[in-house]
Amino acid sequence: MTAPKKKSALNVMPGVAGAAALNPNLRGSLKASKNLSVDDFVAGILAGKISILSRAITLVESTKAEHQILAEQIINACMPHSGNALRIGITGVPGVGKSTFIESFGLHLIHQENKKVAVLAIDPSSEKNKGSILGDKTRMEKLSQHTAAFIRPSPSAGSLGGVARKTRETSILCEAAGFNIIIIETVGVGQSETAVKSMVDYFLLLLLPGAGDELQGIKRGIMEMADGIAINKADGENEARARHASLDAKRALNLYPVGENGWQVPVQLCSALENTHIEDVWQDAERFERHMKTKGFFDKNRETQASFWLRETISESLLNHFQKNPEVKKRLAELELEIKNQSVSPFTAARELINLFLQK
Amino acid sequence: MTAPKKKSALNVMPGVAGAAALNPNLRGSLKASKNLSVDDFVAGILAGKISILSRAITLVESTKAEHQILAEQIINACMPHSGNALRIGITGVPGVGKSTFIESFGLHLIHQENKKVAVLAIDPSSEKNKGSILGDKTRMEKLSQHTAAFIRPSPSAGSLGGVARKTRETSILCEAAGFNIIIIETVGVGQSETAVKSMVDYFLLLLLPGAGDELQGIKRGIMEMADGIAINKADGENEARARHASLDAKRALNLYPVGENGWQVPVQLCSALENTHIEDVWQDAERFERHMKTKGFFDKNRETQASFWLRETISESLLNHFQKNPEVKKRLAELELEIKNQSVSPFTAARELINLFLQK
Repeated sequence: MTAPKKKSALNVMPGVAGAAALNPNLRGSLKASKNLSVDDFVAGILAGKISILSRAITLVESTKAEHQILAEQIINACMPHSGNALRIGITGVPGVGKSTFIESFGLHLIHQENKKVAVLAIDPSSEKNKGSILGDKTRMEKLSQHTAAFIRPSPSAGSLGGVARKTRETSILCEAAGFNIIIIETVGVGQSETAVKSMVDYFLLLLLPGAGDELQGIKRGIMEMADGIAINKADGENEARARHASLDAKRALNLYPVGENGWQVPVQLCSALENTHIEDVWQDAERFERHMKTKGFFDKNRETQASFWLRETISESLLNHFQKNPEVKKRLAELELEIKNQSVSPFTAARELINLFLQK
Repeated sequence: MTAPKKKSALNVMPGVAGAAALNPNLRGSLKASKNLSVDDFVAGILAGKISILSRAITLVESTKAEHQILAEQIINACMPHSGNALRIGITGVPGVGKSTFIESFGLHLIHQENKKVAVLAIDPSSEKNKGSILGDKTRMEKLSQHTAAFIRPSPSAGSLGGVARKTRETSILCEAAGFNIIIIETVGVGQSETAVKSMVDYFLLLLLPGAGDELQGIKRGIMEMADGIAINKADGENEARARHASLDAKRALNLYPVGENGWQVPVQLCSALENTHIEDVWQDAERFERHMKTKGFFDKNRETQASFWLRETISESLLNHFQKNPEVKKRLAELELEIKNQSVSPFTAARELINLFLQK
């Protein structure tokens, strides 16, 4: 292997929070100690060394085959040391104030609850809209400087499944490194909410006190996924509107039957900017965790999630292999034309392609 | 091959509408002429012979390999003769009066518009809830007796993808047999709407004049899929409530931006029971067809649908082959336990299983 060039995944470290990303000396020292073994990585992570954790995550995010093999070994060694954190998903439409909320919420957890907080993100569009989520280094400024916090931007663009897998693997490493709160943020558009919902214990929906925003949640089915709701920006002139939004949200929640777990979704008013009622939002999450653990749903949910990811990964991986097959590629292009001309049905075309693929 | 027993797919013909299903003589004659060639089937279908069409559909629905091969040949021969019908999807929550509406709507099309109407259905739960959709022979009694109508229940239970594929193939055969309106009905729950939306030209949502029902549509994203909305049961005491529901629906529609095709979703009030304003609902569909054809979106939509079904069928078929593989099955059971014990990540397990599968 040649020495890494400027753009090597291991060298650029786009996700190292705070000092490591900006300090050229640290960057130099990482380059020098580049050839860590799996054991070195695991020992470093278990000792809570952020620089090692960051480098392991960079391996997880790398598309190079040798990095992926290394990453997988590290993840499997960390697996038994993971699982003790509470995983919290946070979503809300753009403008709802997610960054400000996560900063307030994270600092509350660190200062009042003595937690270590890792903040991850899922944004499949992150490469396109460079830095649309967690990419801006000025976001969560206070939280990112805290030693008990670790902030990592979304893995760069790819299929939602791929981005989600990397985030889930990253959370395993963070848990092994001693972070006991994992916050996974997502953009409030598209299907990334479903991905986040399927990897967290508690799913928090942030709403704005503006008219119609509660419907934004309803129409995309997000309200159905929420374990808790917080109306953010409930401050100053907004207070009356926020109370109104809260009533609307409660009314909308009443449309759904209470689920098997018997949990009533709470609705809080808070202001991340003025740092009010953030502790109420946390108490909801804690109460939910106790509720779910008492009823046996907590572990059951995690098992369901693991089995979901197994199936998802198999599906995605099968399709990847299929699409990369050169004979399939060639014939697919021909068959697409025939389908367009109605000389073959999509179903016959699919069968022919599958046979072509599996005879390989 | 031995002679078919009582329960043979070809013999029972659960879907033959009207006389054929009930007349033991006809059943006998079908048995006698059992060994039709592909050419016989195709010639019969193109000549509009309902008994041949029904038998071809039974082959489409059969799970026997030899039937499937035959069905595929028939479908591909019929493909060039299909595509000239207008395909209309109809959905709505249970109780909205779908059967009564389709009966009125179908009879209007036959008597006033000189159409031939085939009514199909997608209900992946149909075997479980026996006859939950189109299974009841007393439904659409007048329509089912008309020679210009053909009614076929949902293929029996299976994966949604499988049921949908069979319905889509059946519609090809019906079009080749000269039916120029294909109505595909679905139950107003779950994901079957998405499947229907992806195989029709016009998607009609039926709503009830009861409070909250318009939200039922919104929350599951169905309103976003609708090309037209009809508030059914707008009769007698319901009229005021129906007008209210219509306003609610229009307000809800305003939440969505008008799509690329520039179509404004119309909302009609009608009563299938009293047979009022059914023609308005049809005129919306006709206007939509003209609008889409003028703008070039009609064919584009069908091409997108064909490519969607190609991809869907490939995914489903790959997974089927994977799950049937005996070595995969055995190892999957072991790995599921390891995932539960957190000794391996779902992603590593998936990779191992894929390698096992593809080395076959």
